[in-house]
Formats: sequence, C-alpha cells, structure tokens
Amino acid sequence: MTTTVVSVVTSRSQYARVKTALQALTEDDRVDFYLIVSGGALVHRFGDLSDIISEAGMEIDKKIHTLLEAGEPVAQAKTTGMGLVEYATAFEELDPDMMLTSGDRHETIASSLAASYLNIPVVHLEGGEITGSIDDKVRHATTKMADYHFVSTKRSKEIVSQLGEPADRIYRTGCPSIELAEQVVQEERTEYDPQTEYGGVGDTVDVSQDYIVIQYHPLPTEYKSNYDKTQELITAYEQLDIQAFWFWPNMDAGTDQVSKAIREYREQQDADGVRFFISLDPHDYLTLVKNAACMLGNSSVGIRECSYFGTPAVNIGERQQSREQGPNVLDVDCDADKIAEGVRSQLQHGSYPQSMIYGNGNAAQKITDTIVELDPELKPPMTPDLVGYQEKIDQ
Amino acid sequence: MTTTVVSVVTSRSQYARVKTALQALTEDDRVDFYLIVSGGALVHRFGDLSDIISEAGMEIDKKIHTLLEAGEPVAQAKTTGMGLVEYATAFEELDPDMMLTSGDRHETIASSLAASYLNIPVVHLEGGEITGSIDDKVRHATTKMADYHFVSTKRSKEIVSQLGEPADRIYRTGCPSIELAEQVVQEERTEYDPQTEYGGVGDTVDVSQDYIVIQYHPLPTEYKSNYDKTQELITAYEQLDIQAFWFWPNMDAGTDQVSKAIREYREQQDADGVRFFISLDPHDYLTLVKNAACMLGNSSVGIRECSYFGTPAVNIGERQQSREQGPNVLDVDCDADKIAEGVRSQLQHGSYPQSMIYGNGNAAQKITDTIVELDPELKPPMTPDLVGYQEKIDQ
Amino acid sequence: MTTTVVSVVTSRSQYARVKTALQALTEDDRVDFYLIVSGGALVHRFGDLSDIISEAGMEIDKKIHTLLEAGEPVAQAKTTGMGLVEYATAFEELDPDMMLTSGDRHETIASSLAASYLNIPVVHLEGGEITGSIDDKVRHATTKMADYHFVSTKRSKEIVSQLGEPADRIYRTGCPSIELAEQVVQEERTEYDPQTEYGGVGDTVDVSQDYIVIQYHPLPTEYKSNYDKTQELITAYEQLDIQAFWFWPNMDAGTDQVSKAIREYREQQDADGVRFFISLDPHDYLTLVKNAACMLGNSSVGIRECSYFGTPAVNIGERQQSREQGPNVLDVDCDADKIAEGVRSQLQHGSYPQSMIYGNGNAAQKITDTIVELDPELKPPMTPDLVGYQEKIDQ
Amino acid sequence: MTTTVVSVVTSRSQYARVKTALQALTEDDRVDFYLIVSGGALVHRFGDLSDIISEAGMEIDKKIHTLLEAGEPVAQAKTTGMGLVEYATAFEELDPDMMLTSGDRHETIASSLAASYLNIPVVHLEGGEITGSIDDKVRHATTKMADYHFVSTKRSKEIVSQLGEPADRIYRTGCPSIELAEQVVQEERTEYDPQTEYGGVGDTVDVSQDYIVIQYHPLPTEYKSNYDKTQELITAYEQLDIQAFWFWPNMDAGTDQVSKAIREYREQQDADGVRFFISLDPHDYLTLVKNAACMLGNSSVGIRECSYFGTPAVNIGERQQSREQGPNVLDVDCDADKIAEGVRSQLQHGSYPQSMIYGNGNAAQKITDTIVELDPELKPPMTPDLVGYQEKIDQ
Repeated sequence: MTTTVVSVVTSRSQYARVKTALQALTEDDRVDFYLIVSGGALVHRFGDLSDIISEAGMEIDKKIHTLLEAGEPVAQAKTTGMGLVEYATAFEELDPDMMLTSGDRHETIASSLAASYLNIPVVHLEGGEITGSIDDKVRHATTKMADYHFVSTKRSKEIVSQLGEPADRIYRTGCPSIELAEQVVQEERTEYDPQTEYGGVGDTVDVSQDYIVIQYHPLPTEYKSNYDKTQELITAYEQLDIQAFWFWPNMDAGTDQVSKAIREYREQQDADGVRFFISLDPHDYLTLVKNAACMLGNSSVGIRECSYFGTPAVNIGERQQSREQGPNVLDVDCDADKIAEGVRSQLQHGSYPQSMIYGNGNAAQKITDTIVELDPELKPPMTPDLVGYQEKIDQ
Repeated sequence: MTTTVVSVVTSRSQYARVKTALQALTEDDRVDFYLIVSGGALVHRFGDLSDIISEAGMEIDKKIHTLLEAGEPVAQAKTTGMGLVEYATAFEELDPDMMLTSGDRHETIASSLAASYLNIPVVHLEGGEITGSIDDKVRHATTKMADYHFVSTKRSKEIVSQLGEPADRIYRTGCPSIELAEQVVQEERTEYDPQTEYGGVGDTVDVSQDYIVIQYHPLPTEYKSNYDKTQELITAYEQLDIQAFWFWPNMDAGTDQVSKAIREYREQQDADGVRFFISLDPHDYLTLVKNAACMLGNSSVGIRECSYFGTPAVNIGERQQSREQGPNVLDVDCDADKIAEGVRSQLQHGSYPQSMIYGNGNAAQKITDTIVELDPELKPPMTPDLVGYQEKIDQ
Repeated sequence: MTTTVVSVVTSRSQYARVKTALQALTEDDRVDFYLIVSGGALVHRFGDLSDIISEAGMEIDKKIHTLLEAGEPVAQAKTTGMGLVEYATAFEELDPDMMLTSGDRHETIASSLAASYLNIPVVHLEGGEITGSIDDKVRHATTKMADYHFVSTKRSKEIVSQLGEPADRIYRTGCPSIELAEQVVQEERTEYDPQTEYGGVGDTVDVSQDYIVIQYHPLPTEYKSNYDKTQELITAYEQLDIQAFWFWPNMDAGTDQVSKAIREYREQQDADGVRFFISLDPHDYLTLVKNAACMLGNSSVGIRECSYFGTPAVNIGERQQSREQGPNVLDVDCDADKIAEGVRSQLQHGSYPQSMIYGNGNAAQKITDTIVELDPELKPPMTPDLVGYQEKIDQ
Repeated sequence: MTTTVVSVVTSRSQYARVKTALQALTEDDRVDFYLIVSGGALVHRFGDLSDIISEAGMEIDKKIHTLLEAGEPVAQAKTTGMGLVEYATAFEELDPDMMLTSGDRHETIASSLAASYLNIPVVHLEGGEITGSIDDKVRHATTKMADYHFVSTKRSKEIVSQLGEPADRIYRTGCPSIELAEQVVQEERTEYDPQTEYGGVGDTVDVSQDYIVIQYHPLPTEYKSNYDKTQELITAYEQLDIQAFWFWPNMDAGTDQVSKAIREYREQQDADGVRFFISLDPHDYLTLVKNAACMLGNSSVGIRECSYFGTPAVNIGERQQSREQGPNVLDVDCDADKIAEGVRSQLQHGSYPQSMIYGNGNAAQKITDTIVELDPELKPPMTPDLVGYQEKIDQ
C-alpha cells in the first residue's frame, strides 16, 4: 500500500526550501508522489524551474500557469484565485491521500484551500514560524486549515499548539532546507564560481576574494516605498569596498519598484563590482552563500540556512523581524549608513559557529517516514479546550 | 470625513445574520457603504436576494456571479477562486477603508483574501465561534487574516484572543442577527402565514395550529451520506403528528443529496402536512421560527436566534456540536427514532425563557459606531507573546 | 504512428450528436483519443453524463467543472471564460495532434480558442449549417478559427467554402448523429418504454398507444419572454388529446424561464398525460423519438434525426428557422393555436419517407478514417481570393 | 438621448490605432463613453497606459488585470479566458448600448464574446483586413460575431460582405489611426527627439541625422524560432551604417524569445547606435516614424500609417504578408542579407507620395457620427443568400 502525496511548487525560494523533501518523496517506494509546478516557478523572469527540477531527478506531473503580471497586489490576489480554480481540478483528478504545502507565501493558501474543499488532508511544513512580516497572516491562516504540521523549531511547535492545533498532529521534523545546507557543507566546495555556468550580467566577481551575497525582497504592505528602500541598500553598498552577487527580487507586490531601482543602478550608475543573477539551482545558491563573507538583505536564507553555515548575515528592516535567529544575524534598519555599518561589523567578525536551531539536517527522511506512517485523515473540529478555554458558558 | 466600507453577501443565511448591520451602515451618514451581492445570493435555486435586498432599502453596487453548479466540493473551491479573482478587481475599484465580512462559509475567505492582498483592513464578524463542523476551519483561518474582530459572545472573545489576536482589536458587539430577532419580538406577529405571500409547494399549513420548522443542511466532509441522513430525518418526521414548514438546504457540497431525498419524499411519498419553501425574507423567516412549536434540523438559527426567542430546538448531528447553546437546545444523533423522540420531548416542554448569550439586540448600532470610531489599519504581525510564548529561544 | 485527438463534451445534446464518432475514435487503434467532460455534461440538473459515457465504453480522461449557475447570459460568458482557462491547461498537458469540436454552442468556442492559441489544429464538425438562431454566430466564428471542416450536408460544404475556407480542408462526412439514428433503425425496437429504466415524473405514458415527444429550448437573445413562449406551448398541448414525453430544456440563457413555466404546469395544472424526463441515453432517446407520432418543439433532433426516421416534426419559432429541412418538418409560429393545428396536421399525415439530407449513416467511420489520413497542420492565413476578392487594390 | 458605448483597451498598439476615436467618443455630448483598460495596457513591461490615457483627457472607468506572464501560448489563452470572465461582469454593470472593439489581437475576442453573450451589439473596427498572419483567424472570427463593421479600406468592405455580413451593417469609416497620422502631419515637428522626455537605454541617437525605427514582433505560430529570426534582424542591422530607435516587442507568444535576442545584443554586443524604448505615447511614436528614413520590422505601422506619411518601410517575413499596401512598402524574407539590402534600397529611394488607402484622416468623427445615428441592435442570423448560396436543397 503506497501513500499518494501531491505538492505544488510555485517559486524558486519555496522550491529551495523543500527540495530535499520532494526528492525523498520521489525516491521512496512507499510513496506515489505527484509534483505540480505553477505560478512564478514557470516564469522566466523569476527563474523557470522546469529544467532545474527535471535535472534534480523529479518528474513534473502538471504545469499550471497562474501568475498574473505582478508588482501589484491585485495581481497577487488573482494569481491565488486562478490557482484555487485549477488546483481544485488537478487535485480531484489526482485524488491524493494528502497534500503537502510549505511556508507562508500567498500561493500556499491556494493549494491549502483547494485541498480543504476537496477533503484532502493538508500537511503544512514550516508552520508556527513568526517572521514579523505580513506573510505571517497567510502562514497562520494555513495552520488553521492544515490537518498535520511538520515544524522546524521548538518554538514553532509550541506556537502551533497554542493556536489550537492538537498536539498529536504536530511533528518537529526540522526544515528540509537545512538538509540541503548539510549536503552543501559535506561537499566542501570552498571556492565556487557560478559565472561560468549561469552567466549573469554585470562585472565579473573574483570568487577567490571576499564577496557578499545580496537578496532584497519587496515588502507587500508598503509596496510604494520599495523603490526608496532599495535605493538605501544601493547607497549602502556603494559605501562598501567588496564584491557582490546580487539576486533579483521575488514576485511579491512591489517587485517592480525593487527591480526598477536595481535596473537604474545597473544602467545608469554602472554598479561596479556587482554580478546580477535571476536565480541559481538551490544547491549552487547555497554553496555561494556558504562561501560568502556576508549575506545581506531580507531573505530568510540569511537567518535559516546561514545559521547552519555560520555565515554572517545583515538582516534589513521588518520582513524577518520576529523570526527565530541564531547568533549569526545582525538586524539593522533600512538606512544606508546603518546597513553599511552592519556589513562592516559582520565582515570584521567573520564566520560564526554552526547553530541547529532550524534542524540538524535529516528533515527530508523524517518527513517521508512520518508521511508513510500516517493514516491521513482530516483533523477533528477545534474544541474550546484546545485554545485553553475552560470557563463555564455564561448566559 | 466618512468611512468607506465594503461588504459581500453570498448566501441567504449569511444575509439573514448580518442584515441589520448592513442596514445600519447604509443609513448612517458617517459611512459610505458599498454592497456586493455574489455567489448563491444571485441564484434562483438558493433564493436570489436581489429584490429582497432592494426592498430592505439597500442599494446593490455590484453583482458578481461566481457560483458554479454546486453539490460537489470541487465546485465550491472554484466558486471561491472565481470570487477571489473578481472581488480583487471590485475592491481595487471601490478602494474602501475596510472590508466587513462575516461568519464561516467558504465564500468568506474569498473576500478576506482579496482584501488582505490589497492591504484593506478586514473586519470579521462572528469570529471565535466554535460549532464543531468543518466550517470552523474557514472561520479560524479568517480570524488569522482579519485585522479587527467583532464577536458575538464572551467565549468567542476569549477564543479569538487565545488564537493570538491583539486584545485591543477584539470588540464584543453581539450578533446582528439578534437585533433582527429583537425587531421580530417587538412586532408581536403571533400568527404569521407565509403561504399567501410566498406560495411554496406542498400541503397547506394551518398556522393557527402548532407547526414546526425544518431546516437541514448537508455536511460537506461526509457528503456522500447526506442522502441517508436526510432520509433518517424524513422517517422521523413521518412518526410525528405535526405540520411543518420545510426549507431547502443551502448550497454546500452535498446539497444535491439532501435535495434528492426531499424531492423523492415530496414526489413519491406525498409528504403529508409539509409545506416546502426555498427561502423567505429573513424577517419573515424569523417570525415563522419565533411562532413555531419547535425548530428541527442543524441550522444555527435553532441555536442562535431561537435562544433569544425561547423557541425549543432539536439539533441533529455534528454540524453545530460545539456551538455555544442556551437552554432551549436539545442535541440528538441523526437517527430517526432519536430525532422523533427529541421533537416530542421539546413539544411537551414548550417555550423557554429568553437567553442573551448571543447579544442583547443592539449589535447593528454597536458595529456601526465602532466602525466609525476606528482609524482602520492593518494589524501588526503576530508576535510570540500574543500566543503566550515566553521561553527563551533554544539553540 | 498513432494520431492523438482530444475532444470536449459539454452537454447532452452535443454528446448525442457526436457519440458515434467519439466511440469510433476510442475503438480505433490508429488513434489515441482523449475525452474531456465539462460544463453542463457534469451537472445533475442537465443530465450528468459521466455514467452514460462510461457505460458506452469510453474512458473520461479529465472532468473539468465550468458551469456557473445558468439562466443568465452573464453566467454563460463566465462559463466559457472558465473553460478557456482550464482547457488551455489540459490541452497543453495532453499535447494532441488535433482537437475535435462540434456544433454551435457557446462551449464550443472555448475549446476552439484554447486549441487555436496553443497552435493545435482544430477540426470542426457541423460547420456551415444555418439554423437562423443566435447560435449561428458562434458556429460561423468557429468556422473561421477551425483548420479542418467535417460537414454534414452539401449546402454546408458550399457555405463553409463561401466563408473563405480552403476547399481541400472541407470534408463532407455526414453527421455522426445520423449513424446513431441508423443503429436505432436497425434495432427495430418498435415499442420502447423509458419509464421502467429511467423513472421520470408525472403521469404514466402507455407506449403501445400514440405519443409525442416535446423538447423546447430557450432562445438566448430574447430570454425574458421564454416564460411566455413556453406557456403558448403548454396551452397548445392542452388543446390536443395525446400523451407526451416532455424533456427539460438545455442550460442556455433563459432556461430558468422555460423551467419555471413547465414546473408550474406540473405542480399547479397537473399536466395530464405528460411524463417529464431530464435526459435519456442518446440511443434510448432516439428510439423514443423514432417511435413517436410526432416530435414537437425547437430541438434540432426534429429536423436532423427525424428526417432520417421520417418522424413528423412540428418546429416552433425561430430557433431552427434557416436549418436545412427534409420533407418531415412543419414550421409554425410560437402561438398556441398554430402549434396545436400543426401537430394535428402532422398526426393526420403520419410517417414520412427517409431523407438522407444529413448523411447516410456512416459518418463516424468516415470521420475516423479522415482523421487518420490527415497530416494535421494549421491552415494557412486566409487570402483575398478565398472569399472571391479579385479587384486591383485601389490607392 | 445619449448612446452608451463601452470599449476595452488591452495593448499599446491597439490603443495607438483607436486613440482618436476614443477621444472623439469621450468628447461628444451625444455619447456616454466608458473606457476599460486591461491586459498588457496595465503592465509596465509592455508600457502601462494608465497615465498616457489620462493625459490624453480620457477617464479610465475600470482597470481589469488579466495578463498572465506571457511568452507562452497557454498564457495567452488564459488571459483571454480571464478577460471573458471579468468583462462579462463589467459589461453587465455598465449595460451599454454597444461595445466597440478593434483589430485582431486575441484580447479582442474576449470582449466580443462577453458582449455577444450579453446581447450587447458589437461594433468591430478594422474588420476584413487580411495580413496573412495567424491574427487574422481572430479577426475574421470576430467579424462573424460582430453586429456592425466599421472598416478602413474598400477591399476590407468587400471582404466583410463576402464573409456573409449584411451590406447595411458595413460602414467604411477609414482607420482612426490615419486621423492621428494626419494630426502628426499637421504639427510639422520635423525634428523630434524622444530621448529627453522618455529616456530609453543604449546609445544616444542624433535626430538631426538619418535614423530608422525598428519594431519586430514575434510570430505566435512558430514561436520557437523567434529567437533565430530576431538574430537575423540584428545581423542585418549590424551590416548597415545608420542610427536606430528600437522598440521592444508586444506581448504575443514568443515575446520572450525576441526579447532575449535583443537583450543579449544589448548586453553582450553593445548594440552600437541603437536606442531602445519600451513605448512612447502614440502621438510621439508616429512623429518619430514620420521623420524616420525608414521603418523596419513587421509592425502594421510600416504599412498603415507609413503609407500616409510616405515613410519607406521594409516589411520582414509573413506577419503582414497579405495586408493591403501602398507603394511605400518593400517586402523581404527574414534573412539578414535580404533585410539589409532592402533597407539600403529604401534609404536610397527616400520618401514616397502620400497614399489614402487606409483613410483620409477623419475616421474618428465618422465613427462617432455613425454610432450616434445607429439604433443599435443585434444583427439577424446569417441566411444562406448572404454568402451567395442559391441552389435548391438536395435530398
């Protein structure tokens, strides 16, 4: 008896985080695994993942285009609506025993809702994390719809429980991205140059010298000031004297503002010392980050994977403000001087010791084993005692 | 300075519950109120509300058809997806200060998501209620996306808080449906016959004699057995010797099974003593219920409005199992004998004293006043302490 | 080398017309045939075809729910839009050599457009027919998008050519529905009673005596008067003294008005002598029609299949006004007296000789053979000479 | 009594072509004009038209985002489907007397279908034109759905008639784009430099010297070779010794291939002498074209507006192969040498005399006057004689 599992990949960052789990599910004989690729993961501008996924040995069962030209909140809402419409058709056809989803992005809720309507149990990875950004709304809403929770940290486990989820449905598997990080550590590629294989545009970076990795995403709730914020970051970088690999932002609302600032920087100010990429294979990306002198921006990678690598990270602004951090992270406001000062301080400090706060590198196997052992069914409705309600009813 | 509010009505039951609040918002000079009618509320089979709403003095600003032919979960998912796509367009055009939504049905989450993506603060009525049905998943997920909570009961207020919502964003306004109930009480229409005005089909009920009101909705998670369950209810009714007004079910998954059983009962077994209706104006419906000897089925009206009327209610099965109840409710399993016995026992008991568990009848004004006084903004991201997390981070 | 063909079935009437072709394609080893069932063909109210298709030996490859609660033009437009969105996904996944579509209904254009965008050659059955109804707009628009035309009649072939389509892309295959008619003729079931197998509601018809078959569809362009028109038909029937099988209308805009009139007739006027059905298997339906004393209404069956059977037909109003007719058809205005008079006259005349105007009963094989022999490719752009344009360009 | 007209603008090229008509409708007191902006016209990458339209004195009544991330046929199909869904809602709300659409692009058919379903008469501009590209499929299909035809040329008028449209519903108004061209001619801006106002990227062009304008769009049916074709064009340009303004392609399937080739040319080969733009205001764009030494590519502007200006044009490949041409056009295959030779020959020839093949510059007023005088109603169904069918029916 095999267990049938379906999962939807909608962006490169989400893919990077769950890749090892998807591979483990693909390879395990006890599991029939269906992979749907959708949204930004099919779009060149944000890094079409089709080839990358195939090269990683996974078959793509369905491609479902849903991404409206983004950069505006209304387009994100519609992308989610399109996803809901079409994932429903796909899930009904595939008729899986469970649907595995991850994280906090808006596409997440489309697959969770579609599965919920179809009475397919939802397994949610990375619930209970608190970053302090608007994405958390979606994450916690997904927790309330999910039937099983595979969490990364001790804090997350406790928070999911406090949100009224039954304890016997919460598993601490660790984050599958840490498993990928562990693979990267074991390979010991201490000097890796992505420019040969991936191209990119801009100056050539000498990877035998110190470099930093920059990844700055828009903040959807304040999307009109994303242009200004990106310029603070550019001004900060101009004050520093170090090479950089700079990655284009994800497709959240505001992405056009961030991209515009970067594009002007490249075209009108030369962007000395910077190499720009759309995306790398997650494995290569993490190798680049592991070897970096510092990670700069507001990506969760600075906090999550870098804690495992010990790579110093400068975390800008509010996007990750409440996320659990290891010792490697320095938080700064989105101000050019403070950003530059933060990077200088981290470069001086150098590498940090490894932290296992997000897992110890065997999440994929844990996830697969747990899935196989589950006899998946919808969770019972929440009862008052699950959120600690005990008083007598007043009348 | 007026406050601009938008709300979406998608079904007759939802409309009945919020009608007084919508009217108060329409009439209040401090508020610009936009009403969108959508989904099942535009469909004849489930009671097209267009005329009813106009007659109640409210203008319909937009009609948005979203309802796929229902009776199957996949159609519900798609209806929600269509709603998300089109509400996003509508909300962007109307550009309101806040979006008011209510309850727990699947359409709710489409408007909540659309507003969330567009950074429009969401006000959620009736959060924190626990019924024990699958609808609660959607209700609690909506709570995690909403920015303000206007709850009905003390228990609900505490539960919303336990789910990690800031205390200063939770208002106990009571349920606007109780205000409608209070209006009905004040009118003192002790004998009301809907057959003249609305027609209906089946036998003629003599409203000067005892009658019961039956309303039985499908259970989406087990939608294949809804036919059998409805037959239990029919068998139970056949054992009783009392007239009945029977209302067709809502459009949840499984509605075709319930309808089929009722239709066969009508067409092949005569359904002696029963008058069938699709829907009445909420006001007339509640008058009918207030005067009834007993309310039978699994509608929340038996628990909510009937507690205020003191009308005895027999509540079948799990759909409302964890909902807060006043003394007027008798819970029974979905078994013909037990249902019949329950009705007999309630008929013998007769009317109960009024309970104010769901509010004291002034919710609409409280809601309007609170909205006017709000300076609406998105809630801050949830922090760990809001769900009572206090331990130090482990590493 | 097999040819891969996909087709979408969206209603019972469309299915009835192409059934033999779909079966021939399913059974032919030279063809990989994919069948998508969608729209009204999945909805109970209009006759869910899933079981009927499976029993006919065909596998359903995809079910795609698209039907919005109909009865309003806006819902039809949205149903078509939903179809376009999802058929595009399905066609991309199946990657067929061609897409086979039929007829004139609005769903047709969704599949034709989806295929056109994806550069999949479109084969259109039943192009060039002129009925005189608004459906023709869609039919002729589809002709302009189709790459191959499999037509039924000589007139159709000439009209498709006049519309600027290349002669070598127009094949006169005959209509596959006539093949089904031929099968029915060969079976010689001269007395067939659908009431045992299908139930239905209303009076019992004695099939050893004369009966008529009534099928009246709404006219979308004037959908507000469909209620009145249906009442003319009812009044006409009341003047006659013959039993009838009456079929509910299709899901075109206006269906609610037609249904309402029929429902009231049934519930308030008893409808003496009438048995009502939602739908039968096409085979059984045609047997019933073949044995009927007269076919009454505005269905194309009265003109198309009845010409082959020689069953007298009374064709009401404009819906089929320009369709090619055999000698068996009497056209009448939608007026109660004229309808009744027409039926009386046809009953007196009795059966007509067989006409082969719509084909000689081997269309399915011709269609399949033609498909196998095609090396399908997109048609070249239309040139001025194809529509007979010869003058010199003026400047 | 005013006439209510709605129109949907979905791309910059379509806007350019109808701008004067939209302005005339806006300004005319006899018309209530509603403008919907949608699709590519709302997307930065293809030139967001919101500001441009507002600056031209027109109010945007609705913005409807529909554009899926393009470059793939499946995304175009879905964009059309989304449009159909949402235009239906918008048209029902606005309830216009007619819907005005133009041209041949895929978005056209979404608005035509939505209006057809809602029984709103469709007025189609630019029907009957034959370009020889796949776009014609959509144009001729739209002709078969449209109720009125406002055509540009004598040939178009005859072709629309041959396609079976009633002669009294075909008006030769001329193309509104020629009116814009006439305005540009009258202004006598013989030296216009867009670089000051619009920026653009690449080298600076000296507009006091000869320059050419390049605009090359993808061919959807062969979208995989668009990259190679664009490289032929680049190689051709490299052989020439003249400055160029190069405009990015439209959003048709294949746009990513064209863009990729251009981007590589810019980033890796320097693109000496070329200034790249996304888009200009139509007025400014035509001024630039009028002053150009040659127009190069496959845009209809080279044939349509340039015939009126007398600007020499080199038309590459099949995209416009059957379009009516004035004497200013030289057709060449998509081969680097032939393109270069064509441009050299046109540069040597210099300016051509004005041709009025596409109208004489007063189309906008003619269109508006015709609309006001119409008493718009749906066209009658096509009858056999309209396509010249006269034979007796064979049986």
